[in-house]
Amino acid sequence: MLIVMRKDATAEQIESVMRAVEERGFKARPIPGGDRVSIAILFNQGAVDASTFEDLPGVKEAIPVTRPYKLVSRETKADATKIQIGDVCIGGREMVIIAGPCAVESEKQAMAIAEHVKKSGGDMFRGGAFKPRTSPYAFQGMGEEGLKILAKVRDTFGLPVVTEVMDLSHFDMVEHYADVVQIGTRNMQNFSLLRRAGESKRPVLLKRGMSATVEEWLMAAEYVMAEGNPNIILCERGVRTFVRHSRNTLDLSAIPVVQRESHLPIIIDPSHAAGYRDQVLPLGRAAAAVNAHGVMIEVHHEPEKACSDGAQSLLPSQFDELCRQMRAIDQILQPSDELK
Amino acid sequence: MLIVMRKDATAEQIESVMRAVEERGFKARPIPGGDRVSIAILFNQGAVDASTFEDLPGVKEAIPVTRPYKLVSRETKADATKIQIGDVCIGGREMVIIAGPCAVESEKQAMAIAEHVKKSGGDMFRGGAFKPRTSPYAFQGMGEEGLKILAKVRDTFGLPVVTEVMDLSHFDMVEHYADVVQIGTRNMQNFSLLRRAGESKRPVLLKRGMSATVEEWLMAAEYVMAEGNPNIILCERGVRTFVRHSRNTLDLSAIPVVQRESHLPIIIDPSHAAGYRDQVLPLGRAAAAVNAHGVMIEVHHEPEKACSDGAQSLLPSQFDELCRQMRAIDQILQPSDELK
Amino acid sequence: MLIVMRKDATAEQIESVMRAVEERGFKARPIPGGDRVSIAILFNQGAVDASTFEDLPGVKEAIPVTRPYKLVSRETKADATKIQIGDVCIGGREMVIIAGPCAVESEKQAMAIAEHVKKSGGDMFRGGAFKPRTSPYAFQGMGEEGLKILAKVRDTFGLPVVTEVMDLSHFDMVEHYADVVQIGTRNMQNFSLLRRAGESKRPVLLKRGMSATVEEWLMAAEYVMAEGNPNIILCERGVRTFVRHSRNTLDLSAIPVVQRESHLPIIIDPSHAAGYRDQVLPLGRAAAAVNAHGVMIEVHHEPEKACSDGAQSLLPSQFDELCRQMRAIDQILQPSDELK
Amino acid sequence: MLIVMRKDATAEQIESVMRAVEERGFKARPIPGGDRVSIAILFNQGAVDASTFEDLPGVKEAIPVTRPYKLVSRETKADATKIQIGDVCIGGREMVIIAGPCAVESEKQAMAIAEHVKKSGGDMFRGGAFKPRTSPYAFQGMGEEGLKILAKVRDTFGLPVVTEVMDLSHFDMVEHYADVVQIGTRNMQNFSLLRRAGESKRPVLLKRGMSATVEEWLMAAEYVMAEGNPNIILCERGVRTFVRHSRNTLDLSAIPVVQRESHLPIIIDPSHAAGYRDQVLPLGRAAAAVNAHGVMIEVHHEPEKACSDGAQSLLPSQFDELCRQMRAIDQILQPSDELK
Repeated sequence: MLIVMRKDATAEQIESVMRAVEERGFKARPIPGGDRVSIAILFNQGAVDASTFEDLPGVKEAIPVTRPYKLVSRETKADATKIQIGDVCIGGREMVIIAGPCAVESEKQAMAIAEHVKKSGGDMFRGGAFKPRTSPYAFQGMGEEGLKILAKVRDTFGLPVVTEVMDLSHFDMVEHYADVVQIGTRNMQNFSLLRRAGESKRPVLLKRGMSATVEEWLMAAEYVMAEGNPNIILCERGVRTFVRHSRNTLDLSAIPVVQRESHLPIIIDPSHAAGYRDQVLPLGRAAAAVNAHGVMIEVHHEPEKACSDGAQSLLPSQFDELCRQMRAIDQILQPSDELK
Repeated sequence: MLIVMRKDATAEQIESVMRAVEERGFKARPIPGGDRVSIAILFNQGAVDASTFEDLPGVKEAIPVTRPYKLVSRETKADATKIQIGDVCIGGREMVIIAGPCAVESEKQAMAIAEHVKKSGGDMFRGGAFKPRTSPYAFQGMGEEGLKILAKVRDTFGLPVVTEVMDLSHFDMVEHYADVVQIGTRNMQNFSLLRRAGESKRPVLLKRGMSATVEEWLMAAEYVMAEGNPNIILCERGVRTFVRHSRNTLDLSAIPVVQRESHLPIIIDPSHAAGYRDQVLPLGRAAAAVNAHGVMIEVHHEPEKACSDGAQSLLPSQFDELCRQMRAIDQILQPSDELK
Repeated sequence: MLIVMRKDATAEQIESVMRAVEERGFKARPIPGGDRVSIAILFNQGAVDASTFEDLPGVKEAIPVTRPYKLVSRETKADATKIQIGDVCIGGREMVIIAGPCAVESEKQAMAIAEHVKKSGGDMFRGGAFKPRTSPYAFQGMGEEGLKILAKVRDTFGLPVVTEVMDLSHFDMVEHYADVVQIGTRNMQNFSLLRRAGESKRPVLLKRGMSATVEEWLMAAEYVMAEGNPNIILCERGVRTFVRHSRNTLDLSAIPVVQRESHLPIIIDPSHAAGYRDQVLPLGRAAAAVNAHGVMIEVHHEPEKACSDGAQSLLPSQFDELCRQMRAIDQILQPSDELK
Repeated sequence: MLIVMRKDATAEQIESVMRAVEERGFKARPIPGGDRVSIAILFNQGAVDASTFEDLPGVKEAIPVTRPYKLVSRETKADATKIQIGDVCIGGREMVIIAGPCAVESEKQAMAIAEHVKKSGGDMFRGGAFKPRTSPYAFQGMGEEGLKILAKVRDTFGLPVVTEVMDLSHFDMVEHYADVVQIGTRNMQNFSLLRRAGESKRPVLLKRGMSATVEEWLMAAEYVMAEGNPNIILCERGVRTFVRHSRNTLDLSAIPVVQRESHLPIIIDPSHAAGYRDQVLPLGRAAAAVNAHGVMIEVHHEPEKACSDGAQSLLPSQFDELCRQMRAIDQILQPSDELK
């Protein structure tokens, strides 16, 4: 933390800020500049709350210097975290493709789509049994029945399954059936749920909140990791901006930033970012091009009959073509490899 | 819903879209325009999913016409909802002032602040016992002990208390002690929590999500109301924008919009919008000037020692002056009264 | 500028960054912390470009400490700038009300509206002769003929007039007729226009860019002031956010921030922020409540016939009521006075 | 335009809205729904101003249906516009790579970088002679001297040159030296400049405004095209959002949207979107992956000495590698080809 004093700050004010710093157990070091003094706070463990000092007389502003996250930080653990899920490894060189419908709607639907996903070379299957819906009157998912269908998909096609958990009361159940437990964008700062996920043996797929900064997102992961679960997959899914031609705006810069700041793997969900099928194709290829550790894509063989998100679901033939293109792009990047 | 066809849409495509509409049980009515045809969907109950149609051949776009909310809509119930909490009525002509510290830190602290709040003419007391914090290492609140202190504040000063509930597992406990149960900005779309709040006998204070549209916010209220609890107080607390000089950007336009769209009372939290004490004063007065049904303000007698949000907490003397100004502004508006 | 080194930065890297700082003529001072070193840059005149250092080996980030603006800064000139325009003073205790139609449409229209403005106690008249329109096919303003009508309004009613200049080629002409020359939101970073405004004898009303930070806005004012014109009125008119229920989101926090950072007067345009008449009323009152130095409001006696912005123009009777309320709110604030 | 009436609108109100529509020369057609009436406006040429009707009694809202742009619309001209600049064709199958320094700083600098650009297979050269800078005290470009250096680069390396024009007074000069005239993000709605560009014989590279919608951007292009210049290259360069880890947020969804809505070619500037060199590499590859018609990238052989934007300039070796990767990705996409 650097506390910048006003140009007209008095010696007493400077003295008093330094005392306030030391009273909190930190070390204060004054840095005289050309026309004002700044005070560095040293030897603090973790982040210091800027607001504590910003209001003292003579203070212009308090600027945080260190990052608040520890366990998830690449400065703490330099080598990339690799997460093994059955035969699939997320966080390694190979791009992982997760695909499936927005929601499990019936066994027939799930099995039909899973067959397509498998044939096109998908690595894992996704599908919601508990659906967070803006409207209380919209389809809310099949619940445990949906989870059982997912288990059947895994057993039949050998595809590990990812599914969302929406609250504490269903966590045990979801954990029982799923290979990876997803925490959705609306729950990124549901801290009770994060703590519970931290006690789970399952890897956690943590979606970025709709308007979360990377720092807030990594702090949410820190909640999970602080409880003992190191297997966290971050998922960028677009953020809310003034833009209206897509459902969200995919923030691809978050991938290199997260890969520099953290050792955790990061994947991309182009479907929710786009909201429209014809945008999912280019964004899916872009996900491969930025060296994400994977993608998660919505596929439906009858999107016009889908209970939710039909317009952003790829047809099986489109998904097949996209897989081919993403794998080819992934190959091109092999030698450059940056932080992956 | 209005489905706009492309200029070059064929008669077959138009026919096929109309069939798709009717198959879903709605009525389709074609509207030939100068250079393209549009198709109106009629007699639908509630909102129709635009994405269902946007992807059919020949369709340019699908434009929602009706709002998805019902119970909370002013078109459903024209007269304003008034909520009685002890002697306080929220939703009536009089502006309600809720104030207190960000978090309950000790009985001594809570009682000291409550005394100031009472003396300045505050109507209700706020204080967090369970605190949602970005960092797992930050102060997380006193839990039940904090709730007991709140109860003591109510008993001592006759101020009804508002406090936040963070998850399902503590709902019974919070409900037991609190007069109004608050659902925080990060939980606005925690649908399980909303449903539980809908079963509560307590009024619910529902904060707007950090980047929620008014429509999403009203749909969150619809979740609560659909379960049987009609006593919902909406609270605008600023939204996330590109702006960095304040913690959030207070969206004052939301007040007249909500008052037109819904019968529910709406209050303003200038403290979390501002993030800095010197901004809370003008924003608090602005809250009175836009005819909100109330304000919720953070006050601390020793902000430099606060466990959280010290920099945005008003000093008791500032709060006192602000109350005086807000009441005076509220008086000025009496005759104009718009939708309140 | 504070350069934060990585935890694993080597002594050579630190040495090399310090050399890079000194090569640019600044003084470098190392600040050893608990687990990393930071380097303060001292004795720099004006802002240092962060990007110069952020890319050197071992550097984690470069954090700007001082503000880049000089002439407009309150640290440079502590007392508030007051601008005298005829009998009107902007920047003093009294709130200034500027009102009129979006565009001058005819002499009859302008005179009719001006009469209302005068009667309700407006201080100045606004009206566009050159209109920046999103569409090349929309009404573009009356040009010089419109300016002549504005001059007639001034002569008839004694109201100084504000009007927008859109490019270099019309500056002399606008300056000839207007009392205050407005630079619109789309031109806030039209640097050639800003320089020309800096050579003008007329006060300049500088609207905030649609997504400008306060810093960028003050730097635009710095362009004007650096050329010799100290008479600049800043005008907050809403910023672009994800919000769709209003045309823009009014950023009221900008008022206390600008009043702290700069000595220049700041007014508010609630009409363009709102976009809808029923929002202009509460936002206009809020403008008075936050202690802005003035407001600029669109009024039209026949808004349904207006060439532009009809929906956000107040009716004369609404404007009259709003003036009454704003003046009453302004009176309440007299004793508190903060930075005004 | 669809005018949605309130549920409680009276027959008189509906009648009166229909009259208002017809008075403006349009045709009004009522559409009775389940619980409310809507009124379609037919046979309008171009866009109708929603605000004209939104304020009439009984109206809930007015929803625009048709797009306001004509000449730039793909519905007007179905085949893609191809722009020939010397040997380079923008808008065809082949991805065009434009590269060079942010600003021309000296002949030596420009020639050295151009040699690298040429060697790596760049198609065109970029470099600013007039620089829009936030600060009046920052380097403002070499002016005509810089333009002469650009002309020399073209003559020496056979690379057509792109450079920015900042105002009307320099347009003739820039046009004289440049092969493509760039209009920068801050001038996207400088309508006088757009009109002048419309009279130019040179192709125009039109950057998206910092917070412009695609519709506003296409309307800016419409200004140019309405004056007679059909050769417009759109350039996505990131938009302003709440995100702070990159300079802007690259909006890749804009590419498929523009390619669907308009026949004009669209390229991507990953350098200004990113702001940091290590983000430019993945975003540059993503630009290739989404099938943009080209990229524009900042390259500098001595970025630490650059007068501006050093931190986002690629080193020649990085640029070389990026070109190789982008060309390889472009090859993969050949067969799929979507709208390009």
